[in-house]
Amino acid sequence: MKKRAINIALLGIGTIGTGVAKVLMNKTKTLARQAGSPIDLKLVVEKDTSRYGVLGLDKKLFTDDYEKAVKNKDIDIVIELIGGEYPAYDFIKKALTNEKHVVTANKEVMAKHGARLLSIAREHHVGLRFEASVGGGIPLIAPFQRDLVANDIQAIYAIVNGTTNYILTRMAHDHIDFSVALKQAQKLGYAEANPSNDVGGLDAAYKLGILTSLGFDMAVNFNQIYYEGISKMKSKDFRYASEFGYAIKLLAIAKRSNDLVEARVHPVLIPAESLLAKVDGVYNAIYVTGDLVGNVLFYGQGAGRSI
Amino acid sequence: MKKRAINIALLGIGTIGTGVAKVLMNKTKTLARQAGSPIDLKLVVEKDTSRYGVLGLDKKLFTDDYEKAVKNKDIDIVIELIGGEYPAYDFIKKALTNEKHVVTANKEVMAKHGARLLSIAREHHVGLRFEASVGGGIPLIAPFQRDLVANDIQAIYAIVNGTTNYILTRMAHDHIDFSVALKQAQKLGYAEANPSNDVGGLDAAYKLGILTSLGFDMAVNFNQIYYEGISKMKSKDFRYASEFGYAIKLLAIAKRSNDLVEARVHPVLIPAESLLAKVDGVYNAIYVTGDLVGNVLFYGQGAGRSI
Repeated sequence: MKKRAINIALLGIGTIGTGVAKVLMNKTKTLARQAGSPIDLKLVVEKDTSRYGVLGLDKKLFTDDYEKAVKNKDIDIVIELIGGEYPAYDFIKKALTNEKHVVTANKEVMAKHGARLLSIAREHHVGLRFEASVGGGIPLIAPFQRDLVANDIQAIYAIVNGTTNYILTRMAHDHIDFSVALKQAQKLGYAEANPSNDVGGLDAAYKLGILTSLGFDMAVNFNQIYYEGISKMKSKDFRYASEFGYAIKLLAIAKRSNDLVEARVHPVLIPAESLLAKVDGVYNAIYVTGDLVGNVLFYGQGAGRSI
Repeated sequence: MKKRAINIALLGIGTIGTGVAKVLMNKTKTLARQAGSPIDLKLVVEKDTSRYGVLGLDKKLFTDDYEKAVKNKDIDIVIELIGGEYPAYDFIKKALTNEKHVVTANKEVMAKHGARLLSIAREHHVGLRFEASVGGGIPLIAPFQRDLVANDIQAIYAIVNGTTNYILTRMAHDHIDFSVALKQAQKLGYAEANPSNDVGGLDAAYKLGILTSLGFDMAVNFNQIYYEGISKMKSKDFRYASEFGYAIKLLAIAKRSNDLVEARVHPVLIPAESLLAKVDGVYNAIYVTGDLVGNVLFYGQGAGRSI
């Protein structure tokens, strides 16, 4: 019996979208075997339709009409990789109400509207998956949702921004200043031309919002998360820290304290011998304490092709 | 609408079984909320039925008849925690053919008969879960089965035996001999009175068999896994290793090499700066390299209440 293919629409074809399209095209056999059905990339929605040439994709797959894609009857799964809050939020919502499963890497949308979108998904009996929104390819969201559910989580300590972790690593090891390390990161493609969301801590705060809502099973008001970046760090801070046996990391922290949960992002002194202190470069790590499982750490590369 | 409860039969009530029974009794609300139905411990099968007193469980829940439990029509899920190959294998098989979901922590059965049992489970449209068979509570098996399936795994390097890792840590840090460290481990409950399965590498080899079959999507003949333990290690080995910048760990290694996969367990010199070298005491860690995800590490406490 030949099974009907699972049809995919891909919204947005930047760095990550290009990577996803390549995997869908190049790993058809592995994906079909694991999914139990062939997986077809049916539609790529992108304003700049000239990009089909770069990818070697059939021109006919391309369209610039997002609305049509999220309503198209042939589409089973919509992968949203536009980024940013709007219009991404609207497209995700429309796709879900049109009974399409949605996969997104959009941390801003999930941090601000995750609870609402998950409830829309439940109403329409479709899945909303956001594994790549925190920690890139590290299996993390799903383990929180499924494997750790019997745990009461006490605390989460996480390095979730590869850009700032790379900069802090360079500052610590090479004794250079923030601005020099930032330029190196930009040169290597680890920091964007406008790095403010990363170095200012906002990106980490989005991710902490998502982790907090999952870990503590609560609706998080994103505006209540305190965040502070790394741009004020000086080279000498690392020298002093090291003398006293500490490393400096930008940590996203969520902790239960009595009936409340505190959530904050800022640079933290951590013992040099701890595992989190050894997480260098663009790597991410998420340290979780649960009542049954004890301490668990997930480690790997963050989002993007190289960060 | 009140949902029917999910009824559980627990086979074997040793250290781990006791822990599971306590969670089922003490976390009813969390479990019911997450599962969507109440979860009832209906039956505890144990030869020594006097143990109900220790647990504060209703005497009526206890039986010594394994056969009946795996055929009982009211039971939805069988949790097998007897351990060892037989009769555990037979009970798991019977439970599956009687259309019960099975949860097991049995690494020996899964390493030797996993492929066959998983295919029986598929035939009868029930689930066979073995998350706790490797790495205790660390979410690991499920991420392999679900979240990393698009990856071609290139290599797995794993510390999967808490007993030997504790002994090696003590030998390295306290400059003591194997026999002294083993005695300490036994005193703390980290090693059994007969520690041969752990210190001889067999326990790690079972777990490697399971990881290899999952990671490389293949049926593994357990007898082809090479394993070697740590009882020949001397205190001076650690001194020399440290002088050259290395740590010594008992690693379970599975690697693709051309069309073959090699799988072996033995003590390994690893660079002191690597993350695996920092995994001390009874902790476990599994380092995986995949073509899409790059390097990922899972870290946490191994099986048992404390190991």
